[in-house]
Amino acid sequence: MKNIITISRQYGSGGREIGAKLAEKLGIPFYDNKLISLAAKESGFAESAFENVENKATSSLLYSIAMGINAYGNRDIGFTHLSLDDQIYLAQSDVIRKVAAEGPCVIVGRCADYVLKDFKNVVHIFIWADINYRKDRAINQYHLPAQKADEEIIKADKRRANYYNYHATGKWGKAENYHLSIRSDFIGIDNSVDCIIRYLEFGERRTPTK
Amino acid sequence: MKNIITISRQYGSGGREIGAKLAEKLGIPFYDNKLISLAAKESGFAESAFENVENKATSSLLYSIAMGINAYGNRDIGFTHLSLDDQIYLAQSDVIRKVAAEGPCVIVGRCADYVLKDFKNVVHIFIWADINYRKDRAINQYHLPAQKADEEIIKADKRRANYYNYHATGKWGKAENYHLSIRSDFIGIDNSVDCIIRYLEFGERRTPTK
Repeated sequence: MKNIITISRQYGSGGREIGAKLAEKLGIPFYDNKLISLAAKESGFAESAFENVENKATSSLLYSIAMGINAYGNRDIGFTHLSLDDQIYLAQSDVIRKVAAEGPCVIVGRCADYVLKDFKNVVHIFIWADINYRKDRAINQYHLPAQKADEEIIKADKRRANYYNYHATGKWGKAENYHLSIRSDFIGIDNSVDCIIRYLEFGERRTPTK
Repeated sequence: MKNIITISRQYGSGGREIGAKLAEKLGIPFYDNKLISLAAKESGFAESAFENVENKATSSLLYSIAMGINAYGNRDIGFTHLSLDDQIYLAQSDVIRKVAAEGPCVIVGRCADYVLKDFKNVVHIFIWADINYRKDRAINQYHLPAQKADEEIIKADKRRANYYNYHATGKWGKAENYHLSIRSDFIGIDNSVDCIIRYLEFGERRTPTK
């Protein structure tokens, strides 16, 4: 399998687990938080600065608006003029491009689909699920208190959308950003992995248009 | 297979062909323009009034705004107070619900996913494709002049989005509206049909959460 696979996912949809199982089945590296550590080492930032980067996307945006800063237009005036969050994003993006250049892998989150938009052989996946399924996973697998689960799911998705919509040009969760989008609770985690593999196999047999 | 399948699709993505082949493979009825004829007969409107209903969605919206009319809030003051387009939409929706009540089938377009949102055993599919693939199909299969293809594709998608966003509460093309969303040009029409069937089979073996 020659593809690099990016996975974007709603909170609690099982997207991370699907990505990990997919990487295992394909025998290729899997990156999520590992990526953060790698990025931290590469850039010299402390790892702790990376940990809540998604949480900071909104305040970073507000800060940028207040300061009249555009994260992209600003690059030419020097790295140090960017906010800490933007510097972290750029450092992470470098790592994503580096691991992608090394060969097939699975990368979860961190706008990887957008960062790798000009790479060949990249397939983008989106995983979502019914709210009740996500609530169950949040309570039973992430050990969230039941009365906080709904709120946390909504907030986590908002953070992901904010983070993506701030850094990327497309919109998080729009079907045409992804080769394949799957509602995971309808078929389960393992079958979702199977669906992705089948899609990748079909794609390998054809000459992709991009 | 117990499911009713709705298919939403970008213009030129092959969504209609995928729907037709899917229905044939599953041995269940297929509805697209047939539905319009059915609706026309049911409601007593002339078929010609239905033909360009998507084209009229925008003007209908402007008309509604100008008249201070809300298509939904207005239902209780009588069918005849609605614009012609809204009346056609309601007549079509009745037909969609009627054919869905009869059993498994494939329905392409016409906001069927939204119309059937409260039905059980409905699976929603979205088909999209790379712009070059859609352009090729527009020229070679729908016989559009090459110099008009780009413009027509963009306009057709805008009409579909307008039509959907006016009548439904969600947003056309948002991944979480659909159980499965597929980029068709990457794997081809027949493989897209295969992917949908696999997804449906996996779903049948589980107890769906909804």
